Order: sequence, then structure tokens, then C-alpha cells
Amino acid sequence: MKLFDGGRAPNPRRVRIFLAEKGIKIPTEQVDLGALQQRTDAYTAVNPMQRVPALLLDDGTVIAESIAICRYFEALYPEPALFGRGPLDIAFVEMWNRRAEHHLLFHVAMAFQHLHPGMKQMVDPQIPAWGEDNKPRIFAFLQFLDGELNDRDYIAGADFTVADITAMVAVDFMRPSKLTVPDRLQNVKRWHQTVAARPSASA
Amino acid sequence: MKLFDGGRAPNPRRVRIFLAEKGIKIPTEQVDLGALQQRTDAYTAVNPMQRVPALLLDDGTVIAESIAICRYFEALYPEPALFGRGPLDIAFVEMWNRRAEHHLLFHVAMAFQHLHPGMKQMVDPQIPAWGEDNKPRIFAFLQFLDGELNDRDYIAGADFTVADITAMVAVDFMRPSKLTVPDRLQNVKRWHQTVAARPSASA
Repeated sequence: MKLFDGGRAPNPRRVRIFLAEKGIKIPTEQVDLGALQQRTDAYTAVNPMQRVPALLLDDGTVIAESIAICRYFEALYPEPALFGRGPLDIAFVEMWNRRAEHHLLFHVAMAFQHLHPGMKQMVDPQIPAWGEDNKPRIFAFLQFLDGELNDRDYIAGADFTVADITAMVAVDFMRPSKLTVPDRLQNVKRWHQTVAARPSASA
Repeated sequence: MKLFDGGRAPNPRRVRIFLAEKGIKIPTEQVDLGALQQRTDAYTAVNPMQRVPALLLDDGTVIAESIAICRYFEALYPEPALFGRGPLDIAFVEMWNRRAEHHLLFHVAMAFQHLHPGMKQMVDPQIPAWGEDNKPRIFAFLQFLDGELNDRDYIAGADFTVADITAMVAVDFMRPSKLTVPDRLQNVKRWHQTVAARPSASA
């Protein structure tokens, strides 16, 4: 088994944090995104979508998509449960992981990809108007999240889940776009300090 | 229990098809997206993200996000399994549902939202360059999918799953943007005919 990893990019980091929370160690191979190694013939044979991460099993089977890789390990090693337990909890974790993806990580990624000078080669054409369009949506969601975190510790409820991993990775990925969580969002800041202090956060 | 539904929009349709496949009937309330009813105070209290569908439970709890609603019903009523069985199958269904979302439905939705004259009020500002940027990605994914469907019946494997629902809804949602599956993609066309012939497709 081998994980094709991608350094500081947010999706590979989601999987590394998930594995650290589960206490799972597997061999990794770095795919150099800066050198566009994800578009080589060799890597395209692994994942035709040319994205990282991807998990190569010993029989040659490949699982792509970060959350698919996480679900594979959750099914193999259910503890600690990071996708919820029981119908309602499972639904809440899915809802909040998707909210964190669609309304936070996605907008952060679009702002980065379409505005950062370093992304010119990878994202062709960059569309600056689209990048800018995403920025206010980041702050609107963080404001909403701040209200939600007023009466609970973690994104999807009382327990740390994959939704916290997605949201933390998204918040940390605001940095290369020089975006920061406003000081007035005290609940988001408190939550971020809590999750960033977990040993898995350095994965 | 009540489902806030949204007519011809793709995400509400995903949930309706899912429920039809499970044989589950629940009361629905239509949210008139054309009249921007999803942005009223009343609906914002149901789902602050102002999106449909949303599932209101009898105790007032709300589950938003289409796939979260589907997972809730899958956990309550596991048969027929639409999210896979066993670690590898679960991972494949998640991978293919996400590929159908990220590399097909998403691009179809962006092209529609940023180019269709009828979306001017809902998507403000429309960014036509961004809408156009998404179009070739739709056809690149369909081409890839055609190769994949050369040796299997359904998107994620031998069985019909939620990934087929997402992909069918995405293909059908190409129509308002006047986009069609090229005739040369015979496997995609054969697959679409098969899934569109299921009774659930009319949901």
C-alpha cells in the first residue's frame, strides 16, 4: 500500500491528518505539484483526474478522492469514529463536512488558484474576477460558523470529526492568499486553537 | 418529517431519485427558487446556507446537503445499498460520486449559473469567462467516463449506486445550457439510457 501525497496542498493534508487521528502509518510518495508531476503519464496512469492524493493498494487498485480514502480507512478501522455513529450523527458529519468543503475550502481554493501569481501555470486561464468573487463568501461562512460554535466544541457536534479536519485545513489554507480569520470571530478562533493543538495537525 | 424540495434543480432531484430507489415516501414542500424563496427569512431559518433540499425532522432538527440526507436514509434503511458494501466498495462509491460531483455536476452547474440569462438575478455577478472555462471540462470528463464504462454497467461498478444518480442528474442538467453528450461516446449513451429507464428517474 502506498499513498501518493502532495506536500502543502490542502487535500493531501486532510488525508494525512485523518490517518494520524486513526494512528495509521503507510508509506508515501511525494508528487511534486509545483513541477506539475501530477500531469505526467506515470501519475495520470494512477489517477486520470491528475489530482492528489491517491491510495495505491497492493493489488494495483487505486482509490482517489481524499474523502474516499478516508472512508476506506474508517471502514477498515472504525475507531476512533471520524464520520459519526448512528443515522443522525452520520448525517450531521456529512452535512458539516460538505458545508466546510462547499462553503469554505472551495472558496479558499478558488481565491488561491485564480489570484495567486504562483498558480499561473497550473490554472490556465486564471480568472481574477472569479477569484475575487469567492473572497466575501469565505468571510460570510466564517461568520455563520462563529454563531454555530457558540454552543458546541467541534464543527459537527460534541466530537472531533472529519468536518473539523476539512475546516481546519481550509482555514490554514487562507494564509497563502493573505486572508485571516477576523479577530471578532472568537468562537472560530477558539475552535481553531483547539484543533490546531492536536498532534495530528502537524501531519 | 418534511423534505424542502426545489423542482427541477439538480440537487433536489438527486434526493428524490434516491428516495424512489429506496421506496421511501415523505411529505414535501416546494421552495420556489425562481422567486428566490430560498433566501426568505422563513427558509433561511431552516437552512442558513439558503440551499435546497433540506430535511426537517419531527423534533425540528434539520439535515441539509443532498448527500447528507441520502446517507441519513441509507443508515435508517440499508437496503438496497446505494453507498456500497464493505471497505473497498464504499471507497469506490465515494470516489465515483465525488468524481461525478467535482468533475461533471459542478462544471455543468457553473456553466449554467454563469452563462444562462435566467440566472442573472440568482448569480450576481455572473462571470461569463468562468462559465465558459467549465464547458470543455464537462466533455473531457465524459470522454474519460466513456472509457471507464467500456467494461462495466454502472459508474462505480456492477451495481447501481448514488454515483449513477449524481452522474445522471448532471448529464440531464446539461440540457438548459444546450450541451449534449457527443454521439461518439457510445458507452455513456448506453449507460444513460439504462439509468434513465429506471422508474426512479422520473422522480
